[in-house]
Amino acid sequence: MSGTVYLVGAGPGAADLLTLRAAKLLAEADIVFHDALVPPEILTLAARAERVAVGKRCGRHSTAQRFINKRLADAAREHRIVVRLKGGDPLLFGRAKEEIAYLRTQGLRVEVVPGVTAALAASASLGTSLTERGVARSVAFVTPRAGTGEAPSRWLAAAMAADTVAIYMGAHDAPAIVSALAGAGKRLDTPVVVLEGVSLPGERIAFGTLAELPDLVPGAGGPVVILLGEVYRQQVALSVVPAKAGTPSS
Amino acid sequence: MSGTVYLVGAGPGAADLLTLRAAKLLAEADIVFHDALVPPEILTLAARAERVAVGKRCGRHSTAQRFINKRLADAAREHRIVVRLKGGDPLLFGRAKEEIAYLRTQGLRVEVVPGVTAALAASASLGTSLTERGVARSVAFVTPRAGTGEAPSRWLAAAMAADTVAIYMGAHDAPAIVSALAGAGKRLDTPVVVLEGVSLPGERIAFGTLAELPDLVPGAGGPVVILLGEVYRQQVALSVVPAKAGTPSS
Repeated sequence: MSGTVYLVGAGPGAADLLTLRAAKLLAEADIVFHDALVPPEILTLAARAERVAVGKRCGRHSTAQRFINKRLADAAREHRIVVRLKGGDPLLFGRAKEEIAYLRTQGLRVEVVPGVTAALAASASLGTSLTERGVARSVAFVTPRAGTGEAPSRWLAAAMAADTVAIYMGAHDAPAIVSALAGAGKRLDTPVVVLEGVSLPGERIAFGTLAELPDLVPGAGGPVVILLGEVYRQQVALSVVPAKAGTPSS
Repeated sequence: MSGTVYLVGAGPGAADLLTLRAAKLLAEADIVFHDALVPPEILTLAARAERVAVGKRCGRHSTAQRFINKRLADAAREHRIVVRLKGGDPLLFGRAKEEIAYLRTQGLRVEVVPGVTAALAASASLGTSLTERGVARSVAFVTPRAGTGEAPSRWLAAAMAADTVAIYMGAHDAPAIVSALAGAGKRLDTPVVVLEGVSLPGERIAFGTLAELPDLVPGAGGPVVILLGEVYRQQVALSVVPAKAGTPSS
């Protein structure tokens, strides 16, 4: 009798933005395979588990993915509770499909635990809705990262058509994002907010316009979310982040 | 010294899909104002709080909203921890903007706690990614519910341009959704999955095509998420939901 592989969303970064279900699974896990970017505070919740970092490097995706698949399957044959921990939500830009498909072909049980995705945590930090009656009735979640053989502008149509846009994994492509959007007709004064390390103590928020995006994006560091749309116009004009009330019992 | 109003995402329905932060705030809250659709299991976490249902009825939005705003502000002047609990995430179709803006004009502190949104929990139930390399690099979250004076087809462009579409609050407009999408050129055989009561014990999942959408949508009951796109083609063809492993320690 083999165990179950739980693909678990680690949320945006803050340990208390894990779900109760994710925290319970981590506490009970025998082994945890985690992305390189999952913060240490979250990994310490997996008190009794063996912890294995399986961060993928750019350009070595397919080899690494086959290796991860194999290790997950081996672990499920040895352990009762195997957790595959992914930043944010596992099924939104999480590359979970290969892992789920492989484990199922091996006859192994897989279950997914959803998480808080970065754009929603970013919105909470800003105190600004992604949607707003009369201004924004649609939100596109896109990534400009194209896979092998994919059209590089696949993301563009959705980003042009939606009222609000959340761009994931776009930090290294800021000039190309501006060219693509401006070339398709997006106004260069469209309000933009860039958030790095969302929900973590070192969270950084930068306000500007689409034209200014390359200057707003940090050079390196943690994951970045780019938000774009008219819902941010007033906040960008004022460049004000609401003060935190802090956790009440601390 | 007045208290803080926490706009808290209750998540998709299951109590253990609350975040740790949300659960802690509910446990410490003095008063909780909640949407009508938040399940009782979640409300019991607010053990010491006064609980007030503030569900809005269709067509009476603005009056009700002013009343809720006023009650939240009054509560913040009396209590230390006021929780405004909203299904899913507060800032994605959560109509939070009016509440945040009003409380700020009153000089009151507001903080937002993000939640797991229904489309991500629906994806977890299906075990299917919203995005997939080579197939889907963008997801649109839309609602066909138009506000007063808004163009009723405002949502349509984003739904047409994105690879995968999650439609919120669309259950009562299924025939209009099919007409609008088909009229704009969406293929009638586009795979569709409809989920009702996502993450709850009575969760219902129906598979079909865009043409069949009106028959897939339940007549009444809990909140419904409609998912649409090529990522669902294989699963719709097989109409198979993965078996649940169950929570490990139960």
